[in-house]
Order: sequence, then structure tokens, then C-alpha cells
Amino acid sequence: MKKPRVAIIMGSKSDLETMQEAAKILEKFKVSYEMRVLSAHRTPNDVAKFAESAKNNNIKVIIAGAGGAAALAGVIAAHTTLPVIGVPIETKSLKGLDSLLSTVQMPSGIPVASMAIGSSGAKNAAIFALEILATADKSLSKKLERFKKDLAREVRKISVIKK
Amino acid sequence: MKKPRVAIIMGSKSDLETMQEAAKILEKFKVSYEMRVLSAHRTPNDVAKFAESAKNNNIKVIIAGAGGAAALAGVIAAHTTLPVIGVPIETKSLKGLDSLLSTVQMPSGIPVASMAIGSSGAKNAAIFALEILATADKSLSKKLERFKKDLAREVRKISVIKK
Amino acid sequence: MKKPRVAIIMGSKSDLETMQEAAKILEKFKVSYEMRVLSAHRTPNDVAKFAESAKNNNIKVIIAGAGGAAALAGVIAAHTTLPVIGVPIETKSLKGLDSLLSTVQMPSGIPVASMAIGSSGAKNAAIFALEILATADKSLSKKLERFKKDLAREVRKISVIKK
Amino acid sequence: MKKPRVAIIMGSKSDLETMQEAAKILEKFKVSYEMRVLSAHRTPNDVAKFAESAKNNNIKVIIAGAGGAAALAGVIAAHTTLPVIGVPIETKSLKGLDSLLSTVQMPSGIPVASMAIGSSGAKNAAIFALEILATADKSLSKKLERFKKDLAREVRKISVIKK
Amino acid sequence: MKKPRVAIIMGSKSDLETMQEAAKILEKFKVSYEMRVLSAHRTPNDVAKFAESAKNNNIKVIIAGAGGAAALAGVIAAHTTLPVIGVPIETKSLKGLDSLLSTVQMPSGIPVASMAIGSSGAKNAAIFALEILATADKSLSKKLERFKKDLAREVRKISVIKK
Amino acid sequence: MKKPRVAIIMGSKSDLETMQEAAKILEKFKVSYEMRVLSAHRTPNDVAKFAESAKNNNIKVIIAGAGGAAALAGVIAAHTTLPVIGVPIETKSLKGLDSLLSTVQMPSGIPVASMAIGSSGAKNAAIFALEILATADKSLSKKLERFKKDLAREVRKISVIKK
Amino acid sequence: MKKPRVAIIMGSKSDLETMQEAAKILEKFKVSYEMRVLSAHRTPNDVAKFAESAKNNNIKVIIAGAGGAAALAGVIAAHTTLPVIGVPIETKSLKGLDSLLSTVQMPSGIPVASMAIGSSGAKNAAIFALEILATADKSLSKKLERFKKDLAREVRKISVIKK
Amino acid sequence: MKKPRVAIIMGSKSDLETMQEAAKILEKFKVSYEMRVLSAHRTPNDVAKFAESAKNNNIKVIIAGAGGAAALAGVIAAHTTLPVIGVPIETKSLKGLDSLLSTVQMPSGIPVASMAIGSSGAKNAAIFALEILATADKSLSKKLERFKKDLAREVRKISVIKK
Repeated sequence: MKKPRVAIIMGSKSDLETMQEAAKILEKFKVSYEMRVLSAHRTPNDVAKFAESAKNNNIKVIIAGAGGAAALAGVIAAHTTLPVIGVPIETKSLKGLDSLLSTVQMPSGIPVASMAIGSSGAKNAAIFALEILATADKSLSKKLERFKKDLAREVRKISVIKK
Repeated sequence: MKKPRVAIIMGSKSDLETMQEAAKILEKFKVSYEMRVLSAHRTPNDVAKFAESAKNNNIKVIIAGAGGAAALAGVIAAHTTLPVIGVPIETKSLKGLDSLLSTVQMPSGIPVASMAIGSSGAKNAAIFALEILATADKSLSKKLERFKKDLAREVRKISVIKK
Repeated sequence: MKKPRVAIIMGSKSDLETMQEAAKILEKFKVSYEMRVLSAHRTPNDVAKFAESAKNNNIKVIIAGAGGAAALAGVIAAHTTLPVIGVPIETKSLKGLDSLLSTVQMPSGIPVASMAIGSSGAKNAAIFALEILATADKSLSKKLERFKKDLAREVRKISVIKK
Repeated sequence: MKKPRVAIIMGSKSDLETMQEAAKILEKFKVSYEMRVLSAHRTPNDVAKFAESAKNNNIKVIIAGAGGAAALAGVIAAHTTLPVIGVPIETKSLKGLDSLLSTVQMPSGIPVASMAIGSSGAKNAAIFALEILATADKSLSKKLERFKKDLAREVRKISVIKK
Repeated sequence: MKKPRVAIIMGSKSDLETMQEAAKILEKFKVSYEMRVLSAHRTPNDVAKFAESAKNNNIKVIIAGAGGAAALAGVIAAHTTLPVIGVPIETKSLKGLDSLLSTVQMPSGIPVASMAIGSSGAKNAAIFALEILATADKSLSKKLERFKKDLAREVRKISVIKK
Repeated sequence: MKKPRVAIIMGSKSDLETMQEAAKILEKFKVSYEMRVLSAHRTPNDVAKFAESAKNNNIKVIIAGAGGAAALAGVIAAHTTLPVIGVPIETKSLKGLDSLLSTVQMPSGIPVASMAIGSSGAKNAAIFALEILATADKSLSKKLERFKKDLAREVRKISVIKK
Repeated sequence: MKKPRVAIIMGSKSDLETMQEAAKILEKFKVSYEMRVLSAHRTPNDVAKFAESAKNNNIKVIIAGAGGAAALAGVIAAHTTLPVIGVPIETKSLKGLDSLLSTVQMPSGIPVASMAIGSSGAKNAAIFALEILATADKSLSKKLERFKKDLAREVRKISVIKK
Repeated sequence: MKKPRVAIIMGSKSDLETMQEAAKILEKFKVSYEMRVLSAHRTPNDVAKFAESAKNNNIKVIIAGAGGAAALAGVIAAHTTLPVIGVPIETKSLKGLDSLLSTVQMPSGIPVASMAIGSSGAKNAAIFALEILATADKSLSKKLERFKKDLAREVRKISVIKK
């Protein structure tokens, strides 16, 4: 069985519905991944251990989704030089503005790549992870180009509503 | 020499100007403290080690100031059950709104007590730390009451501008 | 019967659903508390009287939840040097951003410790109150450490979703 | 000497520069006023005493300016049924958005009339106070109409920049 | 039949549900009022005519509710020196933040007294109108004091939830 | 002398610095314009009269700049069916967010075309006015195409910074 | 059959419900239009081709609706000197504030005329397009004046709720 | 001479000061890059041509900085499957909140990886680009680990301010 190349981490089980959008994309592209709940605030040592060993475990890209004071992506980035993609989860009161600012406003030196709030962000996190892998994988690069063409084709099919 | 009872932590040297307001208050009340730069993103293991050993090192309260994706207070809180007070540092673009939301919007289970953005927040963090210590220290409690009366007296001195 | 050590105050009966999250935590830890509706705007003298006598009534920490122009926590803090923890209640139109800013942006001299908006904030307010009490109560301190380990254990149980 | 009919209250001496705009307007209209620093957070009992006795002291309208967690106008309104006009003072980090929401988002039952943030708000607070007094004072009502016409005339003088 | 002393104006029929909260208060206090839909954007001349003749029609206070680019209160204030109270109506997308800023951020010279967003604001607009009328009406002033005491009594009845 | 085809209106003399950016563009294109200070709040009848007669005075497009509770563009649009372009002026405290929302969030039926906050918005208001005129003026249409090409050429000149 | 004079473009099929409000208005005024889904992000070359040929295809005004990082209106404006009207579509998390800022904050040189968020904005986009066409079409200009009078009449019918 | 592996694109010459922070990092790591001004709104065809040919020109990662209605990164991402990193440039009025939302809120299918607002974001964009390249370049991966250790060492040097 192939070792996972992408890790999808989320801060809470309640983020699963959103983060599964990322998993679906990776499955569609047949890229192996693992998916875990790890909390920067409730299991910080597990986060550190995961992040520090990820590179040696063959992980190439980490996707991290969290809401509110969303420290998860940043804390993972603190423990690895692998690219970390953050997904700000929508929240009940502030609708994910808190999650977005907590994810994106990283200090210089420790980047996190933030996607959009919510499930679009989760889906795009996976596509972005594929784009990273594709920088060294021509076959994946071709697949992504086809995927992009398919997106365009779908839009074109329904393009003319009234002429 | 007395062991510090309060720790003032900040995410970056540039936060010192703000956080010194906390130190001044503790000095005024003759409460011993230590002050360190520890970064949740650049020295995460130092933060963890500090927070995990703080209780055994006689620290009773931790004050943590950080800006932007301000994970520091939350990450310290993740590693200790000591009360952690967060000071959102003002930032260049978003003026500390990012720092505030990253500090205050903690998930249930791991509280951080957020103060106001900037130097008022830093000053109040120290006063709040004193209020915590005073719950078990009658003499400090009296001092705080006097401090409060002095605040009122200062306002009263200049109260009547025109009658 | 044990005298309450924590007071949970709310500005309106409609805040009860949120604030009961705080009560549940205190009950879980068997820490005695009282719970009252007191309004900074509708019963200001009751608020003042409550706050001024709280220390003599054995209260160690006050939790105050209010929404909108949420003056309650700040006004209580104005009348006591006990630590006051503010819970910004979610509001219909501005979703608690108004409550948060009214709670957290206190002037220097009179701190309020703000928690997150809504029920996470209420729950954390109680945990933070326990952390304050635990600074002078070893047994409570141990209980909090166990609680934290339990939180981690719960996360770990469900951690691996896909490997 | 005439008893003041309007009270201008501010939460801090630093608000004086802004609130003097209100005083200037009242002087221009020869309406007697008093001006005081009273803090909802540092001198809450003075605020209560002032507000409770204002009506008997012949005060007809109260103008209250404060910044940040701006509880002052609301707390005064809690202690009187006189009309209370709030002026949200501009703040360093959040530019007065905090002051505005803390002033205007009052719960039903206890109104505060909020003006704009900063010195325009202070000036308008005084004009609004005059409009209130003018509901029972024909001569003042006439003066306000002239003032309004003068405002229009000033605009008209410079109206045509290029034709 | 008594001539109306208060006018309740709203920008659209859809604001009626909110603005009826103001009407209910005035009815409770037996203060005569009229209620109209007048739009600053769809019937601007009607707004001007109404505002310019209001004073002669015995109106003492005008309450104006509008949402979005809520120009109504400001435009009425442009045409009269009567006190104008603005009620920012909650909107679908921006939840009334647009209505609030459009209502409250008036230029110096032409004040509008803004209440809170939505039905609390509408209710308070009526109470504030009564407070204005009461500055020259002792009997109304007494009624308002009783109303305030009733508010406090209601809170007190349910005050102790757990002791 | 040619009659003005575009009117540039501003709410206050202090908006002139921003609005002159619009005038410069019109001069560059040799399109006649008039420029006036007219205030929705201080000279509402002048605004109405101007807007109602604009079409008969040969005006084809109206540009209106205002700040804060920026009612000007909307009120002009209320009195004419000419296209009205709004320029939200930057404000001291809220930086033009208030002006933007007051300008753009118009109710259905009465459109205002909002540009960006500040001088970019003023400049673009004029270009947009030219685009409107150009829908019936081939020569102007050609000029706009050249202008667009010049913009591109300027960017291209400095395009390669490092290769 | 008449060639379309207005183009209604939207970034995604899910925007159709909102954008149909624009179509309904054009139909009411019997102005020919075409309606297409074209995505700045998924079919960028189609957008470019459409925009570059629009003028030659007799299109006079383009209405473009998009949500989130709403680049569509701006990108169309980049490829044509026809007037482009942007409609910010309401979004799930940020409620269209993201769409609004992405639509309206255009750099100088390339204007987009932004309408309000959501269906009011879509409806007004069509009315504004008509106002543009009417600058060179007297009959349409008269129709718009009647439409405006009808709007006023509708308001007036329900104007007096209580007298 | 080595072909550039990273492209740094900015929407305007005025973004150069910010974007040079990215260039400095790449130079420090001796990674070849090119730097260009290309505007999504003023030179859209150049942007398209650049993005479509980037992969064949050996570019592996694209960094794009823009302010306001910051369409640049998204439009580049529309034309390539290379990873695109967006840097929201700080703006005069809205301080980069507009740039951030325009950059990060991408629709599903076309990801942009957003960094923080301003120069921290630019610096981190370069580090993130290096992290992407390092997924297939062990030597670069080692360099990044050393860089991270150096960051930590710098913090540690100044860590103890008071003990």
C-alpha cells in the first residue's frame, strides 16, 4: 500500500464535513493521503510530534483546517518546513472572519498558505496540494491541466442562458 | 531573591514597548516577574517547555502578548492549567483586530483571558494578574483596593472642568 | 451548605442558555456558585451593590455575560478588585462583535478578562475561574490537569480518520 | 448666574479636545452647561450620583463622550430618564468602531442617542441637545433655524467651483 | 382628537414590523403619533415636504427607520430643526452595519440620534422621544420614572437563578 | 462656450482635493463639466433643484462624492433618471467604509454606481462617465480605447524589473 | 430579431437566481439582452474574447455579477471600454462583503460601477444600464421617468399607516 | 545563466517596495527568479500570456502581489496549474482588508494561496515558494531547516529580558 503523500489535519471532529471536500479531490486524483484530528489547543504535543515527523514519513504537503482562534496551521508550520495549507473553518458567530485572520496573518519566517473560508477553501486546499506535488510530477501536472479544462467545459456547457 | 510569580511572554522583541506597560505595573506592586521573548511560530518547543514547567517553577499567572495570527497565548494555555492572559498587540495593517480575534476566540476547554488591544491591554493584563494573585493574598487585595481608590482620586481631581 | 465561590451574572434572562454552560462546568468540578440576572442598564444599583459586597461574601471570581453594548462586566469590574471574566453574548444583527468589543476594550486601570463570543466563551469562563481558584488550591489544580488530559484523550480517540 | 441646562460628561481628560466642540456650540447659543470628567469604570459611584441628581439639578439633557468599551453614556442612561446623547470617541487601534458599537447597541428600555465618531459627533451632540431644548423653547427654535440657514449659506457661497 | 406629537417614518413597508415596536411604546404612554412610509430615494419630495411642515403640524420629535444606504433620517434632519431619531433597520447581507453607519455618521451641523440596529432600536427610539417630550412635561417625566422602575422590578423578579 | 455634459458634485469643500482627480480626467478628454459643492444635509433643496433640472440643462452624467453618512449620490439619484456615479470619500475614523456602504447599498429602484474609496474612485468616476458618453459618441469611444492602450503601454515600459 | 444591447454575465450558474432580477427589468423595458455564465477564473479566455468583441457585437453596457474574490466585472472592464456594472453576489460566510470589496475597489484607470450586494443590486444594475442607454435615447428616458413616478406612486399608496 | 524557477509578479510599480521582500529571500537562498509588473486590469493579455507560458518557461511557482480589488493572483491562477501564491498589498483606505478578501476568497477549482497583508506576506510568499521547490529538492529542504533553526536562534538570543 502506498504511503500517504498528503496529510489532512483538522482541529476538531466538527470540521470533518468541511475537510472531506479536500479528501474527495485527492481521491479523485488517486493521491494517497491520511486524515487526522489533531488540536493545537487540546493535543499540542501530538501536533508537534506529527509535524516534526511528517517529512520523514514521506508527507510532502500538509492541509490544516481549524476555526475561531485557528492556530493549527500556524503551529504545524512552526514544526516543519513542509508547505502547510490552511483552511479557515466557518464559525457560528463571526462566520470565519476570525478563522481567516488567525490563519493568514502569520509573522514573517513561518508561512501558512490560506485558502478561502469553508468548503471551497477545503476543496482548493487539495487542488493546491496537487499543484505542489505536480511541480515534480509531470503526469500529475497533465492531470491537473485536464481537470482545469473540464472545469472550463462544464462552465461552457451552461454558458449561454439567453441569446 | 524572590522567584517570579508572574511570567510576561511576548512573541517578538518588537512587542516589548507594549508589554513593558505590564512590567511597570508589577514593579509598582513589587510582585516578582520574569519577562521573555518566546514565539509560538519560531520557537514552539521553547514555548511548550516553558509552559509545561511554569507551574513547577512557581509561576502563578502567565501574560502573553502577540500580534497578527496571535497564537502565543493559546498555545501556552494548551500546555498548562495556569491562568493565561492574552494581550493582542496592535498591528500595522489590521490595527490589532487580527490579534484580538486570534487571541480571544479560543475553543471550549482551553481558555485565554483577552485584554484590550495594545498598551491599555498590557497594563490591564498586569492588574488582572494581580487580582488573580490577590484572591489568595489579603495584603495584595488591600493594595489593589488602594490602587483603585487612587485611580478614582485622580479622575476626581480633574473632574470639574466647567461648572 | 458551602458559600458560593464563583458568581455567574448575566444581563438578561435570555442570556441564560449561554451562561448555563459555565454553570455546568462548575458543577462538574463541584465548585459552589451563585447565578443571577443583574443588568448594568436596568438595575445598575443592584449591580453596584452586588459587586461591592462580593468580596466580603466570599466570592473569589465573577463571570459576567452580556450582549450588545455589553457594559455589565466592565461595570462590575468598576466596583470590585475581584477578577471579572466577561462573556460576550452573540447578538442578532452584529453576531456578538458588538458584545466582544464592548467587553474587551476596557480602559487601563479596570481590567475585564474577555472570553470568546457565545457558549464556548461561557464554558471557558468557568474553566478560567477554576484556573484562578486553582492558583491557591492544589487539589483543584490536579483536577484541572486531569480535565485537560481527558480533553486530549477524547481528541485522540477519534484522531485517526484515515491512514 | 444661570444654572446649567446641559451637562457634558467625558470618561477621561483625554476626551476633552473632542468634547470641547460640544461646549463651543452651546456657548455660541448662550445655553448654560457644565462639563465634567466622570468615568463609568474609575468613578462609577460619582457617575451614578451625578446621573440620579441631574434632573433635580435642572439639567435637561446629558451629553456623554467615551472611547473603547464606552459604557459611560449607557450607565448614565441607566440612572436617569433624561435624554442622554452619546459621543463615541475615536480610539487608537479600532478608530472608534469599538466606541460606536459600545455606545449605540443599547438594550431595549434604556436608550442612548448616538452621534458620529469623534469631533463631528461632539458638535452634533450639542446641536441635538439644543434641538431637544427647542421643543419647548420657541426662541431657541428660531435660533436653530437661523443656524441651519447660515450653514446653507456658507455652502452656497462656495458652491460653484467651476461652471 | 389630539394632534400627533411624534412622527414615525419608515423608508419601506417592509420596515413596518420593526417600527411597530416604536408605535407600541407610544401607545402604552398614550402619546399621540402618526406613522408613514416615506422614502428618501423613491419619494424625496414627500420627505422634504413632510419634514419642512412637521414643526408647524405640532410634531415635536421625528423617528425615522431605514435600511441599507439609510439616508432617510439624515434627509429629514436636513429639512427641519426638530430632533430626528434614526433606527438602522437590519439588512439581509450586512445585517444592519450598513444601515447603522449610514444613519449615525452624519456631518457636523445636521445631527441624527442613532439607536441600536433593529427592534431594540425602534423601541428605544420611542422611549427616547418620550424622554425628549418629558423635558417639558412633568407628568410624562413621572411616567418614565415609573416605567424605568418597572423595568428594574421585572429584572429583579427573576434575578436569583441559583443561590 | 460648450454647455457642461458632466456635473461633478461634492458634499463639502473638503472633498475638493479628491474630486479634482475627476475634473482632471474630463479636461484631458476635453469634455465640458461643471463642479459644485452641494450638500444633501446642509442644502437639500439646492440638491433637489440641481438634480431635477440637470437633464434639461444638458447634463448627461452626474458624479457625486461624499463622506461618512454619504447620502449625496443617493439623494441626487432620487431626483433624476440620469446615471449617478458615487465616489465614497475617505473619512478620518472609519477610513471610508462608512462612505462606501452609504453610497453603494441603495434600495432597488434607485441605482447609484459606486466607485472605489478616495482619489482612485474619483478618477474612475470620470472615466466611467466618459464610457457612458462614449456609448453614443464614436470619437470619444476611440479616445477611450487609446487611453486604455496608453495605460497598458505605461505598465509595459516598466514591466520587466528583473529577468 | 433585435441584437442584444445589454449583456448580463455571471461567474457561476448559482448566481442566476440573483441576476435574473436584472433580466426581468430589461424585459419590462423591452430592451434586448443576452445572458451568459462566464468565469474569470474557470473560463478566462472566454471572458476576454467576449469582452473584446462586445462593442463590435452592438453591446452598449455589460452587467457582471460574481461572488467571493469577485474578479469578473474587473476583468471584463480590463478588456473593453464599454461601461461595466458590477453586482456583488451574497456569499455564505462573509455575506457579500468580500464580493463588494473585490468589485468596487478597482485601481484607477479601469472603472467598475458597483451596485449593492445581492438582488437589489442586480435589479439596480439593469436600471442603471437603462439610464446609460437613455442618455442617447429620449423615448427610453421618458420610460424611466414614468418608472420612477410609478415607484413613488406605489410608496404613496401605502404611505399613511396611521394618522 | 540559470533560468528563473520563481516568478514574482506585481500589479503596479508601487507594489515593488513590498514585493522586494520576496526577492531578497530568494536571493538569500540563491534561487533564480524573475520579477515583473503585470496588471490584471491594465495589461490583462500580458498576464494571460505570461501565465499560460510560465510552465514551459521552467517557472515552478508564481508569487503575485496586488492591492484593492486584487484580481492578479486569481487571474494568473486561472491561466495555469502552477501553484500561485498571493500577497495582499496594504491599501490606503481599507488597509489591505480589501486586498486580502479579493485574494483569498477564490471559488472552488482555482486555488490561490494567500499570505498575510504587506511585507510579512511578501517575505513568507518567497519562503513558501522555497518550501514548494524543496518538496523535490533535498538540498533546498536542508537549507530551509537551517533557516528555521536560525530564526529560532535569533529569538533565543534575545529571549530572556528579565529573569
